[in-house]
Amino acid sequence: MKKFAAVVAYDGSNFHGFQVQPDQRTVQGDIEKALEIIHKQSIQCEGAGRTDTGVHALGQVVSFESYLDRLDPETMKNALNANFPDDMYVRRVYVVKNGFSPRFSARRRIYNYLIDNSIEPNIFRRKYLWWFPYRIDIEKMRNTTRYLLGEKDFTVFRTGRDDRDPIRTINSIRIIRLKHNVLMVRVEGISFLRRMVRNIVGTLIQVGVGSIKPGIVEELIESRDRSKLPYSAPPQGLYFHKVIFDEFES
Amino acid sequence: MKKFAAVVAYDGSNFHGFQVQPDQRTVQGDIEKALEIIHKQSIQCEGAGRTDTGVHALGQVVSFESYLDRLDPETMKNALNANFPDDMYVRRVYVVKNGFSPRFSARRRIYNYLIDNSIEPNIFRRKYLWWFPYRIDIEKMRNTTRYLLGEKDFTVFRTGRDDRDPIRTINSIRIIRLKHNVLMVRVEGISFLRRMVRNIVGTLIQVGVGSIKPGIVEELIESRDRSKLPYSAPPQGLYFHKVIFDEFES
Repeated sequence: MKKFAAVVAYDGSNFHGFQVQPDQRTVQGDIEKALEIIHKQSIQCEGAGRTDTGVHALGQVVSFESYLDRLDPETMKNALNANFPDDMYVRRVYVVKNGFSPRFSARRRIYNYLIDNSIEPNIFRRKYLWWFPYRIDIEKMRNTTRYLLGEKDFTVFRTGRDDRDPIRTINSIRIIRLKHNVLMVRVEGISFLRRMVRNIVGTLIQVGVGSIKPGIVEELIESRDRSKLPYSAPPQGLYFHKVIFDEFES
Repeated sequence: MKKFAAVVAYDGSNFHGFQVQPDQRTVQGDIEKALEIIHKQSIQCEGAGRTDTGVHALGQVVSFESYLDRLDPETMKNALNANFPDDMYVRRVYVVKNGFSPRFSARRRIYNYLIDNSIEPNIFRRKYLWWFPYRIDIEKMRNTTRYLLGEKDFTVFRTGRDDRDPIRTINSIRIIRLKHNVLMVRVEGISFLRRMVRNIVGTLIQVGVGSIKPGIVEELIESRDRSKLPYSAPPQGLYFHKVIFDEFES
């Protein structure tokens, strides 16, 4: 047996998120279907992050065990891509140690969030950016990020079912103007709670338009009261961009 | 009665082309549905070009007559957008003379064709560019355009049912490197035959990869034999970009 790790990109528009669910099309489900075709038996895979419905990935990482020991990574990549639908693509395959786990071996996770700040909507971007046509003060957003950095109890930025430890570490948040009307929020951390990145971006944007003051974010975090969470950002702007391991980065 | 012209953008991925067809979702069909909701009666519209299934538009122009004489263009624009699906958008509305026809008053039509020349496919571009991973010699393509310029019999570049006069005029063809791996072919003419732009792009690309010599294009045109047409380009790379009228341009 050999353990493989695959770097997978997908367009989240037509998936019900990453995690396998009965009677729903999911990323994990489609990867396991391809693995079953290749191996002629059911094979399970594990992912580095459970993206929600509509969320995209450029560098999701999945791992699985295979009895096809003699397949080199490039051949495994081609075999997977030959059995993938057209909205999913394996960018690279690695052979990893048996103890490797995309979830637990990850040192860093990077998410990018794209915002279309144009006055008129662009129909070609509707599934790939959040169209937000109001005036945004980027400096205000940047000044707010300091309340979010480091190890904190992020209970307030969590939504939905998630019973894990709410203490998480964010290493950096950068707000970058990619084009005249396109903003990117890049959030780098060790691991994240459910909807945490979208809730952080939605809150930063509300600071950017002047609806709430930067200091409110500090109060929100300290409150640890999920019912106080003011804003979120829709899924289509979010990209699971990169995972960094000791062995490689996606 | 007032005549309005609307500049419409659409993502062609989920339309069976522009022209109304029974039991199919079409651009014209969806525009006429919105017009019917606004006017409480059936209203027909005319377009500047009949794009095929999967072909996009940034500057399609449609016109229609309306008894809502008191609506200013901005209000008509908002009324249409409020009744449009999310893959279609009115960018601007003009009040035009009664004799105005998007089809017959057009002085110039500009089509853009986008090619993704990356080695690996990009799933986010799959519906919006033609992924063509082979090495392309742009200079060869540029040297070929001279055989295509001016008034010519373009029979060989026509596909499908089209009984119109095959004599057409192309004013310019430009091949532009938009990014490192993205090429754009911009074709400007008065009017085009069915699939003409896609067939021209497909042929130019074959010159670019060295499959055929530039001179072959001249022979093909002179043959006027549609069965000799060697290549075409798929619909998803094509954008109906702009229409120029005496009154305005889209």
